[in-house]
Amino acid sequence: MNSDALKESVGELWEKYVRHDFVKRMKDGSLPLENFRYYLIQDSKYVRVMLKSLLNASSKGPIDQVSKIILKVFQTRDKGSEVHSFLLSQLKVNEREIQDTGYSLVNYAYTRHLFYHSNLGWKQFLVAWAPCMWGYMEVGKYVLGSPNPLYNKWAEFYSSQDYRTRVEAILEALNSVDLGEGLFKVFMDSVNFEIMFWDSSMRMDPTPFHGD
Amino acid sequence: MNSDALKESVGELWEKYVRHDFVKRMKDGSLPLENFRYYLIQDSKYVRVMLKSLLNASSKGPIDQVSKIILKVFQTRDKGSEVHSFLLSQLKVNEREIQDTGYSLVNYAYTRHLFYHSNLGWKQFLVAWAPCMWGYMEVGKYVLGSPNPLYNKWAEFYSSQDYRTRVEAILEALNSVDLGEGLFKVFMDSVNFEIMFWDSSMRMDPTPFHGD
Repeated sequence: MNSDALKESVGELWEKYVRHDFVKRMKDGSLPLENFRYYLIQDSKYVRVMLKSLLNASSKGPIDQVSKIILKVFQTRDKGSEVHSFLLSQLKVNEREIQDTGYSLVNYAYTRHLFYHSNLGWKQFLVAWAPCMWGYMEVGKYVLGSPNPLYNKWAEFYSSQDYRTRVEAILEALNSVDLGEGLFKVFMDSVNFEIMFWDSSMRMDPTPFHGD
Repeated sequence: MNSDALKESVGELWEKYVRHDFVKRMKDGSLPLENFRYYLIQDSKYVRVMLKSLLNASSKGPIDQVSKIILKVFQTRDKGSEVHSFLLSQLKVNEREIQDTGYSLVNYAYTRHLFYHSNLGWKQFLVAWAPCMWGYMEVGKYVLGSPNPLYNKWAEFYSSQDYRTRVEAILEALNSVDLGEGLFKVFMDSVNFEIMFWDSSMRMDPTPFHGD
């Protein structure tokens, strides 16, 4: 299947992503809250461009497949937003702070990468998007049970049945398209971005980019 | 004028860009050739996406203004390509190496930033693009006279009358549009990218991104 072939093609990078030090420290509870707070703000900015890219790509794909994914994502978005809102309020992050904070270089590059591929076509977007959705399911299952109640709450969403149905719809779509060699590179680029996203949250990189 | 207001709005960042250490060392000839070689490969990759973005944005602008800029850019492209080809051949870089080399994170982010704005609209693209075209004219004039014949050749193009007519057409277009606050941020993002592009060429960053 495409999904297996894609994951295999990136080799050990996949483990570097889903078992990153950031992830391990969420699981054992040793991740400093300030890193998580930084991460959550960047992630909130990421999700908006991700959804924009999904919608931009959606008119370019087969309508039944696209409809199913759009439905799953937006049906479960409330749940995701609820968890996010809870975490943001616990960490005293308001909407204004999210708006006023810029993008890190990594986040800016990753979100523009998603949008760029959403413009090339539906399958290009699917491949660029899959590492995020798929990997977070694995990360969620792994982090579940963290002694830190915030990290555990975070993990509950990504390990939930709701989230799983999203990922399944995406992987099903991914498995139905013709992949060329170029798309393997796109998948790998996104896995690299995921790794860099954790790296960047560990370092709490500067956030100089204020484009929308 | 918009162009003056934009340049003023970034304050000392403009000087950091056009008088970067990379630029100073081109001028005095002390820049190691390996850094210039690295830069030139990344720049070659950049130019392709820049032109793609220009073409993508072009249908969204006023046809007379767009036509003038397209004409200037493509009319003088031969000259630019000639200089580039000469430099690449002197440094033993062939087309294959350019293709096979990935993008640095900075270059990937910057090129996707240009494309993203080309998709938003003509003036969004103009503002994102201007720092590159405009700044290089200033850099070219400054570097001209370098004791290193390659750096001098490079500077001859960017300080040429041909290149100047491009920049004038772009600034004229820029001065005719309505700028909102958001566009000042876009301009600043691009200036930051230019600074980071030099930084990155000094460090010779890894080039893991293989998207087209």
